[in-house]
Amino acid sequence: MGSSFGHLFRISTFGESHGGGVGVVIDGCPPRVPLSLEEIQQELDRRRPGQSVLVTPRQEADRAEILSGLHEGRTLGTPIAILVRNEDARAAAYEAMRDVYRPSHADYTYQEKYGIRAWQGGGRASARETVGRVAAGAVARKVLAELAAVEIVAWVSRVHDIEAVVDPATVSRTGVEATPTRCPDPAAAARMVARIEAARDDGDSLGGVVGCVARGVPVGLGEPVFDKLDADLGRALLSLPACKGVEIGSGFAGTWLRGSEHNDPFEIRDGRVRTRGNRSGGIQGGISNGEDVLVRAAFKPTATIRKAQDSVSTANEPAIIEGKGRHDPCVLPRAVPMVEAMVALVLCDHLLRQRAIA
Amino acid sequence: MGSSFGHLFRISTFGESHGGGVGVVIDGCPPRVPLSLEEIQQELDRRRPGQSVLVTPRQEADRAEILSGLHEGRTLGTPIAILVRNEDARAAAYEAMRDVYRPSHADYTYQEKYGIRAWQGGGRASARETVGRVAAGAVARKVLAELAAVEIVAWVSRVHDIEAVVDPATVSRTGVEATPTRCPDPAAAARMVARIEAARDDGDSLGGVVGCVARGVPVGLGEPVFDKLDADLGRALLSLPACKGVEIGSGFAGTWLRGSEHNDPFEIRDGRVRTRGNRSGGIQGGISNGEDVLVRAAFKPTATIRKAQDSVSTANEPAIIEGKGRHDPCVLPRAVPMVEAMVALVLCDHLLRQRAIA
Amino acid sequence: MGSSFGHLFRISTFGESHGGGVGVVIDGCPPRVPLSLEEIQQELDRRRPGQSVLVTPRQEADRAEILSGLHEGRTLGTPIAILVRNEDARAAAYEAMRDVYRPSHADYTYQEKYGIRAWQGGGRASARETVGRVAAGAVARKVLAELAAVEIVAWVSRVHDIEAVVDPATVSRTGVEATPTRCPDPAAAARMVARIEAARDDGDSLGGVVGCVARGVPVGLGEPVFDKLDADLGRALLSLPACKGVEIGSGFAGTWLRGSEHNDPFEIRDGRVRTRGNRSGGIQGGISNGEDVLVRAAFKPTATIRKAQDSVSTANEPAIIEGKGRHDPCVLPRAVPMVEAMVALVLCDHLLRQRAIA
Amino acid sequence: MGSSFGHLFRISTFGESHGGGVGVVIDGCPPRVPLSLEEIQQELDRRRPGQSVLVTPRQEADRAEILSGLHEGRTLGTPIAILVRNEDARAAAYEAMRDVYRPSHADYTYQEKYGIRAWQGGGRASARETVGRVAAGAVARKVLAELAAVEIVAWVSRVHDIEAVVDPATVSRTGVEATPTRCPDPAAAARMVARIEAARDDGDSLGGVVGCVARGVPVGLGEPVFDKLDADLGRALLSLPACKGVEIGSGFAGTWLRGSEHNDPFEIRDGRVRTRGNRSGGIQGGISNGEDVLVRAAFKPTATIRKAQDSVSTANEPAIIEGKGRHDPCVLPRAVPMVEAMVALVLCDHLLRQRAIA
Repeated sequence: MGSSFGHLFRISTFGESHGGGVGVVIDGCPPRVPLSLEEIQQELDRRRPGQSVLVTPRQEADRAEILSGLHEGRTLGTPIAILVRNEDARAAAYEAMRDVYRPSHADYTYQEKYGIRAWQGGGRASARETVGRVAAGAVARKVLAELAAVEIVAWVSRVHDIEAVVDPATVSRTGVEATPTRCPDPAAAARMVARIEAARDDGDSLGGVVGCVARGVPVGLGEPVFDKLDADLGRALLSLPACKGVEIGSGFAGTWLRGSEHNDPFEIRDGRVRTRGNRSGGIQGGISNGEDVLVRAAFKPTATIRKAQDSVSTANEPAIIEGKGRHDPCVLPRAVPMVEAMVALVLCDHLLRQRAIA
Repeated sequence: MGSSFGHLFRISTFGESHGGGVGVVIDGCPPRVPLSLEEIQQELDRRRPGQSVLVTPRQEADRAEILSGLHEGRTLGTPIAILVRNEDARAAAYEAMRDVYRPSHADYTYQEKYGIRAWQGGGRASARETVGRVAAGAVARKVLAELAAVEIVAWVSRVHDIEAVVDPATVSRTGVEATPTRCPDPAAAARMVARIEAARDDGDSLGGVVGCVARGVPVGLGEPVFDKLDADLGRALLSLPACKGVEIGSGFAGTWLRGSEHNDPFEIRDGRVRTRGNRSGGIQGGISNGEDVLVRAAFKPTATIRKAQDSVSTANEPAIIEGKGRHDPCVLPRAVPMVEAMVALVLCDHLLRQRAIA
Repeated sequence: MGSSFGHLFRISTFGESHGGGVGVVIDGCPPRVPLSLEEIQQELDRRRPGQSVLVTPRQEADRAEILSGLHEGRTLGTPIAILVRNEDARAAAYEAMRDVYRPSHADYTYQEKYGIRAWQGGGRASARETVGRVAAGAVARKVLAELAAVEIVAWVSRVHDIEAVVDPATVSRTGVEATPTRCPDPAAAARMVARIEAARDDGDSLGGVVGCVARGVPVGLGEPVFDKLDADLGRALLSLPACKGVEIGSGFAGTWLRGSEHNDPFEIRDGRVRTRGNRSGGIQGGISNGEDVLVRAAFKPTATIRKAQDSVSTANEPAIIEGKGRHDPCVLPRAVPMVEAMVALVLCDHLLRQRAIA
Repeated sequence: MGSSFGHLFRISTFGESHGGGVGVVIDGCPPRVPLSLEEIQQELDRRRPGQSVLVTPRQEADRAEILSGLHEGRTLGTPIAILVRNEDARAAAYEAMRDVYRPSHADYTYQEKYGIRAWQGGGRASARETVGRVAAGAVARKVLAELAAVEIVAWVSRVHDIEAVVDPATVSRTGVEATPTRCPDPAAAARMVARIEAARDDGDSLGGVVGCVARGVPVGLGEPVFDKLDADLGRALLSLPACKGVEIGSGFAGTWLRGSEHNDPFEIRDGRVRTRGNRSGGIQGGISNGEDVLVRAAFKPTATIRKAQDSVSTANEPAIIEGKGRHDPCVLPRAVPMVEAMVALVLCDHLLRQRAIA
């Protein structure tokens, strides 16, 4: 009981990495929104493994099917169910996972929590679970585009210690998609590629940071005191696999400033109230203020590595585990569409919530 | 619609900084838990302003009253309503807030979202709102102590650039409460006091980081994939006033490591499965693994300062605002009981959720 | 965990019949709605015991206090907390309840569910719990009047076997309030009074039926397939103390008709789509169709009677119980404002939900 | 936003009568419960059209597929997604529905609410939507059987004016399934068949009442004051297509009795507290008391008839509609598994809720 997200635009995902398939039911999508399968498929293709040498070579077409909620190219206002079949279910490749817990994976905790575990490929804890999120995020983006003019762009901001220089005000999806790392700073991107390949060849893995901006967010989204926009964004991002930290606006860096340095003065600009600077990250008191919404998410280095590691068996005996299956040396590039999806889901939900009382 | 938190142990807070009072209704507290008003009052006293020269001198006794849900010293299983009257409602002191938006405060966004605003003292966006959270957190702690043996300790880890050295495995409330900064590293604490006093005298403010550990958390808490324990902790902390970032376990720092460095190997210790190292922060795959749960929260420098700042008026004219009211140069010491309360609320809720399916 | 109701206009009630007080927190009320304490008090006065010889003589002024959420006579969009103190807490009068379960009351089930019980006056199971509902219902009515033009009138339709003749299209609150029974058919009302007095004198009690109409409900309220308007109305009414049955439109009587007799033909009337007849009770497919919403609720005879009854003690021994405390021979008159409140809460919630997607 | 049901055992259904398919996602099912596709299919077969001459001849095998949440025949504790493909999608047969609203159907209200409508076969408002409910209900029954020993039996109690004599204490599924009407009183069943055939031949339809008993319900299920067991049962049943009324225990008939006649005296029987009589229907104060839970649901005569009816067109012009498609002269027999499913879902959810605090 924890596979649903959102209050009015509410998604429920399902599926393990092996089994019939993965997907999502979206309840609460406004009616009459134009929507095509292609728009969903496009986002799934970005999330899909096997796009480049940098990511896991698992080969699945991940073709989506819309089972309900559409009528002649428009949403009905009824639940939209989307299904992606599992194809590449080579359970045998995961035999080693059956008996030994992978360090820093969810094998042990799932086994202890549920007393049962779909050990093949990580089961529900596999990153494959995010298929449903990304599909739903594509629908949320469409709603945001129809009802407001919100544009969401995420990018790889850092891999290991290679930091990119990116301007949130101007970064574009085109720039992001121009490199296999999804880092819109070409020089940094090239260094990231080399670093990831080196880690892969070494049987190791890397982490990093994804940045994300939402432009055009209307003033007034967010529901204090618990469903603040920043709180919901934080929960959304921290629910992604491997995410260990979240920052809104100035984040941790802001704590090194004094209030007089950190505050964003108000001014009248373009005929409306604006801030000079945006350390607030577009959110004040948990409510969007019309400036760019800025978030950052830390993704730890992938837990799956090829190097031998100490662990214990399901029989509670010491054991050595060596990664043999496919392995993704750096999840950052694939995390980009996931982050965008989660941000879109949060904004879409809050947009509807604000409409209810506006 | 956003003033409730939790799924089974569900709290609903209410109240503005001025008006009848602030408080909370707790729905879902298990029955027969011993509970006294003193246990709640003790936590409120830690949150209360005016405890030292470091925090806002607003003088309110913040005496709590339990209106329902208790019978002969034990919980009934029915809603527990707790009320704290507002006393020190010197609305006049806040006259300046009426017409000019305070930078990096919630004045502007509340006005835009709701089209109305309780301008005295920040209204619902005041830190006074956390009274209800802290009272409910005291009840959650009691439940955690009764049903499990969970112990939660938070501390001020950094103020501005003064970093404390604290061992989460051994830090105690006694150590935390030993200094007015709630920093259990006495040397750092002394420097923090001086830094805060300097900022106060300068009419400025400081931010920092609060660390928190939960010891004794049972294995198995957390509900993937959206209600992961880390995701809910993140949301809980980011819903606190002035919080701009959250880390679980290794957080952002962990992204500088390789997988082989970051992973927590499993071993058999004390007859059960343990990890060597705790970069996971006690949570793997969104589920507690029995190790200490470790979180960190970044609090920006207080937005209220005495220095003059550029702003705009409610009539959308440029304006200068000068803080005249009481002002808290550093919220960190008072954030400690708030962080503990939010962590307790999350853990208590997930403990009940796990019992439902165990 | 069950003391909250509603999705967007969400109320959380609290309080036992004895203890600090009873009340409600309303989260999600739209901002800027004019609201006065008098409007709430007026409804509470209708619910209050001691209004006539027909109802329980418990004497409490039931003065409400608004603790939060209001600013200069308008709602803030923040939680509205309302408190009514308990005054007449003559616990001693209820001593008999301590040791013997009252038949068809909640004494036994509360004791078994929670393992503890506030035995004085029924605790949380007392009808006093409805104070919070009625207060919240008054706010909901105000929102419905501001955002739509919904008018809700309930009446006593039957007491025991005395059936009133009432036209839902024209029945008014004035007519309802004209008699102590809240039955707008004066002849039937007079017979009801005599019947209730006879039952009271005999130490017995009576049940009956409350009818309710909501006029001016916009087309489109209700959220299939589970949150249908009729389903939510049914839940709302069945959650009232002593309610054992609910009908929407033709209800059980409609099952005696054939489809050709039961269907409501559509026609164009007053320039818009209307139905001829209203066996649907204003709801089709779970969504309001613009006709009068019609519901009926069955209330069993009050469980508290003065006659001696067989029962068992809390020590699981046979026992005889004789009602000595105050006793309400017929809850129907006081159920009228409760039914109106619950209908208002459901409609208000659905009105907001529809606005989110409209 | 209204296609989810339940709090801990939470289902989200999806699907229109035409389109890819219908189904359900169950979130919160406890882990390790043995479950087979056959158990789900068996219930779907009971719901399926075309079982006898009495019900709609729509011919679909309604073969279910479990997409997720199962591992080697046991539940994983993760979401269980179940899909049933639509096969018999003869949209052309429904052309008439495109332009003219069917009286007492949901065509008009869906069009007005959403501004769009899947006009073929009723879309989301089709009884086909209940496939997901019945599939989920089969899982809920399995959980109830594993964790408690709850047995749920529903039956057709009345069709038009033909009332069956059924003893809730002993009625069995075998008896119910022995006749095509699902009425376990053979004499009444025979008369019902004749009456339904006559209505069908006349192009008309009939309504009636379904009774249901849940035996073996543990004491203590139900969460006052809004999530009372009876309130949730009422909502569950009223959310079924064509349901217009619900009774718990004595229901409307109980209002003709005096309190002294209606109360269920307590006694010690079989070594535990029992009631003599069961007018409470197994629920007191919203909480199960261990006696049989008794509910009744009124289903109106099917709105679809072959007779010509007055209506209006989608262009708001007067029109005549004549039913040409397949038509179910009496939904009662097929409502039986739907009622059982909804009762199972409510009980299962409350069983888990009670475990959380027990």
